[in-house]
Amino acid sequence: MPHALPLSSRWLAACGLALALCPAGALAEQTLATVSSPGQVLSVDVRLADDGRLSYQVRRKGKPVIAPSRLGFLLTNAPQLDAGFSLARQSVADHDSTWEQPWGERRHVRDHHRELRLELVQKERGDRRLAIVFRVFDDGVGFRYEFPEQAQLGEAKISDELTEFTVAQPATAWWIPAGELMALEYPIEKTPLSEVGTANTPLTVRTEDGTHIAFHEAALVDYASMWLRKAQGQRLRAQLAPSATGAPVERKGAFTTPWRTMQIADSAAGLYMSDLVLNLNEPNKLGDVSWVKPSKFIGVWWEMHLGRSTWGSGAKHGATTQNTKRHIDFAAKHGFRGVLVEGWNLGWDGNWAGGGADFSFTRSYPDFDLPGLAAYARGKGVRLIGHHETGGNIARYERQMDAAYQLYARLGVDSIKSGYVTDGGGAVFAGPGKRTHFGYTDSQEGVRHFQKAVTEAARHKLAIDTHEPVKDTGLRRTWPNWLSREGARGMEFNAWGNPINGVDHEAKLVFTRMLSGPMDYTPGILSLQGVDGKPIHSTQAKQLANFVVIYSPVAMAADLIETYEKHAGPFQFIKDVPTDWDDTRVINGEIGEYATIARKGRNSADWYVGAVTDGSARALDLPLSFLEAGKRYTAEIYRDGDQADYRTERRHDLVIEKRAVTSADTLKLKLAPGGGQAIRLTPAGG
Amino acid sequence: MPHALPLSSRWLAACGLALALCPAGALAEQTLATVSSPGQVLSVDVRLADDGRLSYQVRRKGKPVIAPSRLGFLLTNAPQLDAGFSLARQSVADHDSTWEQPWGERRHVRDHHRELRLELVQKERGDRRLAIVFRVFDDGVGFRYEFPEQAQLGEAKISDELTEFTVAQPATAWWIPAGELMALEYPIEKTPLSEVGTANTPLTVRTEDGTHIAFHEAALVDYASMWLRKAQGQRLRAQLAPSATGAPVERKGAFTTPWRTMQIADSAAGLYMSDLVLNLNEPNKLGDVSWVKPSKFIGVWWEMHLGRSTWGSGAKHGATTQNTKRHIDFAAKHGFRGVLVEGWNLGWDGNWAGGGADFSFTRSYPDFDLPGLAAYARGKGVRLIGHHETGGNIARYERQMDAAYQLYARLGVDSIKSGYVTDGGGAVFAGPGKRTHFGYTDSQEGVRHFQKAVTEAARHKLAIDTHEPVKDTGLRRTWPNWLSREGARGMEFNAWGNPINGVDHEAKLVFTRMLSGPMDYTPGILSLQGVDGKPIHSTQAKQLANFVVIYSPVAMAADLIETYEKHAGPFQFIKDVPTDWDDTRVINGEIGEYATIARKGRNSADWYVGAVTDGSARALDLPLSFLEAGKRYTAEIYRDGDQADYRTERRHDLVIEKRAVTSADTLKLKLAPGGGQAIRLTPAGG
Repeated sequence: MPHALPLSSRWLAACGLALALCPAGALAEQTLATVSSPGQVLSVDVRLADDGRLSYQVRRKGKPVIAPSRLGFLLTNAPQLDAGFSLARQSVADHDSTWEQPWGERRHVRDHHRELRLELVQKERGDRRLAIVFRVFDDGVGFRYEFPEQAQLGEAKISDELTEFTVAQPATAWWIPAGELMALEYPIEKTPLSEVGTANTPLTVRTEDGTHIAFHEAALVDYASMWLRKAQGQRLRAQLAPSATGAPVERKGAFTTPWRTMQIADSAAGLYMSDLVLNLNEPNKLGDVSWVKPSKFIGVWWEMHLGRSTWGSGAKHGATTQNTKRHIDFAAKHGFRGVLVEGWNLGWDGNWAGGGADFSFTRSYPDFDLPGLAAYARGKGVRLIGHHETGGNIARYERQMDAAYQLYARLGVDSIKSGYVTDGGGAVFAGPGKRTHFGYTDSQEGVRHFQKAVTEAARHKLAIDTHEPVKDTGLRRTWPNWLSREGARGMEFNAWGNPINGVDHEAKLVFTRMLSGPMDYTPGILSLQGVDGKPIHSTQAKQLANFVVIYSPVAMAADLIETYEKHAGPFQFIKDVPTDWDDTRVINGEIGEYATIARKGRNSADWYVGAVTDGSARALDLPLSFLEAGKRYTAEIYRDGDQADYRTERRHDLVIEKRAVTSADTLKLKLAPGGGQAIRLTPAGG
Repeated sequence: MPHALPLSSRWLAACGLALALCPAGALAEQTLATVSSPGQVLSVDVRLADDGRLSYQVRRKGKPVIAPSRLGFLLTNAPQLDAGFSLARQSVADHDSTWEQPWGERRHVRDHHRELRLELVQKERGDRRLAIVFRVFDDGVGFRYEFPEQAQLGEAKISDELTEFTVAQPATAWWIPAGELMALEYPIEKTPLSEVGTANTPLTVRTEDGTHIAFHEAALVDYASMWLRKAQGQRLRAQLAPSATGAPVERKGAFTTPWRTMQIADSAAGLYMSDLVLNLNEPNKLGDVSWVKPSKFIGVWWEMHLGRSTWGSGAKHGATTQNTKRHIDFAAKHGFRGVLVEGWNLGWDGNWAGGGADFSFTRSYPDFDLPGLAAYARGKGVRLIGHHETGGNIARYERQMDAAYQLYARLGVDSIKSGYVTDGGGAVFAGPGKRTHFGYTDSQEGVRHFQKAVTEAARHKLAIDTHEPVKDTGLRRTWPNWLSREGARGMEFNAWGNPINGVDHEAKLVFTRMLSGPMDYTPGILSLQGVDGKPIHSTQAKQLANFVVIYSPVAMAADLIETYEKHAGPFQFIKDVPTDWDDTRVINGEIGEYATIARKGRNSADWYVGAVTDGSARALDLPLSFLEAGKRYTAEIYRDGDQADYRTERRHDLVIEKRAVTSADTLKLKLAPGGGQAIRLTPAGG
């Protein structure tokens, strides 16, 4: 193939066409900027090659973490935005502030970073402009692109985002596939990084020297979700979820992309402790959100997964007035704010996941008295939790959404669990005109829908818990009514999954999925059984620990209420544990092996600790230095019995004991194989 | 997430949503059909699961080669075509015929296969129909989908082809990336199969037990090119090259997909010997193609890659009347039919690869007398070879194509080398209206363009040699004026590449790229040097061997003519070697290590042998049993000198000798590191 460039640039002629055709350093490059985090932990270099291609790299304490990696875009409607750049202007700014979350894993969040802003221009493309902004924290880096208003590019139709992430040291990865049907519910895989296919994010990586990196994005708004696709070796590149109707992303005028984020730490715990993603999101737009209630709930739910009742109508219909009243009574008695009822509305008969064609979001089955039950619940200090399963038919849902929201708001149903189960064919979107089409929920139009469902809900003071969602990118900061999501393999797989969840599932989740935000994991299956009595890979203590280890502001005690009635001992922990926190400390952990987390209840002096392990028994140290010094506490300990083991009947062995402790103590947590431990620490005498 | 299916199908409820969520065998399945190749070497099972999902698997001599792998499609304009199938009809048919190629690696090609045809219907989707056809050969399997004319699906907008290829045994893969800029020109990578990212095809795999598989496609027409993307483990899935304007594939009415092909053999040689891809293509549509001339050519080309002259105008312009005459004279003197001249036409000044905006395909630079030179050449029994470099601007090229073809046809320029170099931004396509957009040449519209360039050329009795092409899928059978393509890293990278081609490049090419069709590799750089005298990884003998080992009906003796004048000895082989064959035998070979190929000249009693090795010296046996028994032959041997080595100055050491041989002899070929051997065998006395 002939050369495009002057012969005096022979290197360029070979390399200029694609950075990856050349070994690193083959191109003459200049460093545009180097910026370090406030504590000099992380540093980012941005370089410009002779052909005007940009790359960035990241170091931690001087050691390469991200090797030179590409930046840029291919467009369908204009020449490429990936080369021929020169620097027009750069600026650096420091930022240090603390903001308060209305709910969350901690109350106060510090945002301390250094920001580098690069304004670039493509002189040979009519001075077309693009900006790239890096924010460098001690515990991570985020960058985004900013497209300004300009005549040279009135609309951007992005076919490929060329952003790459090249991990510098040999590494292991924990990932789930993307671009597969119901991909988020695949088991989390652990493979060498070089064996990643196409992955969703967070994608967590650990290098041979113990550096941990989590790749993700923040503030995913009106853009396609970013998957990560292995290119060559340990080089991942962005893959924008495809659109059914055009380029993956189409935007007019000025806009910014989501932040591409890398949390970087020298331990798994350090990874979790970062607030990078929240800090890169816009502040709360809703103002007073006192109507958003972190709380616990039970539900008419597990019985259907066990096959004892049905979502659809008939003799075994679960969502009946009588069954719901029974649950409301139980909730009231035991202090649960919410009762979720699935299968209440018309449309569950037939093949609903094949496009959800029959769902009504306003009309219930005849045996479910929605207004009556809503009032009955209110009278007992309990709220029904709404349920909108769409079967993936977003077009249909959006047509009914306003009426459905109004109905719930009127009845005092102030939170909704939504669902987007498809039987494999993709979600149904509307447009143009009266037509519909099938596409990915991760697409730009899918992202728009999820956003709209939340902002519209806010107008009615409704909170949303999205199942089968797009990934969480921290938008709960901006829209604090976006309470929780599923977005990974949850407890229901322990009912009927093939396979059921692995014994190391939680220890993987903490350092992968949980880095993105809360998960409605629905823990607390104290029966330790799924369908036909098949045992789940857990002990009792681990089921309790999950309430602390897997964060969600709305947490479901998921088992049958009759099971809880038979397990008053452990059930007490479930009743006590809060879902909103002043502070969170990850005490220890290794991805896929174990994790111990301590959290302080919001507006409380109580601390709660949860520890979980995989198939290996463990003895973990728990220094209580997070307690207030000089104060005496009572530790209510729920631990595995000495013979407990997830593989045997002894999985049910639970010891409940109390101890007096102070902040000077270190507890030794003995976890059984597949086990855990849950502890409530309350000031003695109060 | 709730279940979509009756509770009596609990397994289905878990697995039915995605085959990969379940371990193999978890779904109840029935075998729809089993079909074996005529010689009982390969067998294919097609299975239907309870939820109506299809899978296929392939065995060789009873042993699994392809584990159960998925079939089906996701559409944007209709519900998915991947589940809910039942079998409407099946039929099996045997086929055994022999057909003749007007030119090729062998004259006669046997097509011996068993065909299984499955007609499927989706009862719950209004009886929508789809057919899948398998053709099973002893050396490979091909299958394709057939969409019938039906009211239930008047148009298919395919977002995803769900076809998968799951290699059953641990394997190594040789691959080049796809979906990257200029991806076909990346060095061929060798990695464990599980480390493939997104690859183009052919993708060649060797399992631990020595089974070789080459994945590719046949008859790629009006459809997007199929890339292969690693999903999980050793499971690859089809990835259709994206479209800039909609779904990757959009087809109305009845159509068939390209054949998805798997050549399977127990040796690398066996892989090469298969004619699977040609056999799956439609027969010759052009009839008499005696105007298509397999031949050799020289050109005004290497001098530009060396930097001694320019494509663009000016004092060092390569494409001048005088320089071209000099080449015509040389070609006439030495029996080369063609002279390629690049840089003859307006448009090479400036950044031509940034969209080829200035190219004219009808107007030459003032210092190039096209009509005069065309006539001068004709007068000497030589033809100019046309050159159409588009810079990726397909829209512009198509506007001028008819005039450009007419011009060449009128002047007796009867073959054209075309090019589609982009500087990274994608090709430029026309439409709708006056607009243009950027996209992949591997897209459906790119495939349409390449097809049109060839069929339009045929109307003018012009042959085409496409550089930066879509992959070759055997369409030269149907359109025998589609002479050759580049489509991999060629000799030019040895001029200026960084890196230059590896010493094992040819031994990799033979068993990967060369499985798809001829390559205009432009061998014969007898100087063994690139820019500034930088040595290439080769000996003299290997440069000669390449003319036999790397098949192309049009082969360029690529070096400067002054170099050939200084190397009369080896140049003789280049002058003698034909480019059209009666028969081809792969004597031995291992991917990326070595290869020995013997070919019989068409309409000739001569045989030619080429052998190449990687960085290791080798002693290879060459049994001459392919020669006619009882006849005496003279072997003209061009071999590495005893001290030859690609790493030293001794790379130039060449020994030319003659020996008398018969079919009973076995020659021992001693190849130097980075070396080769070229042999001409002619009947003694004539």
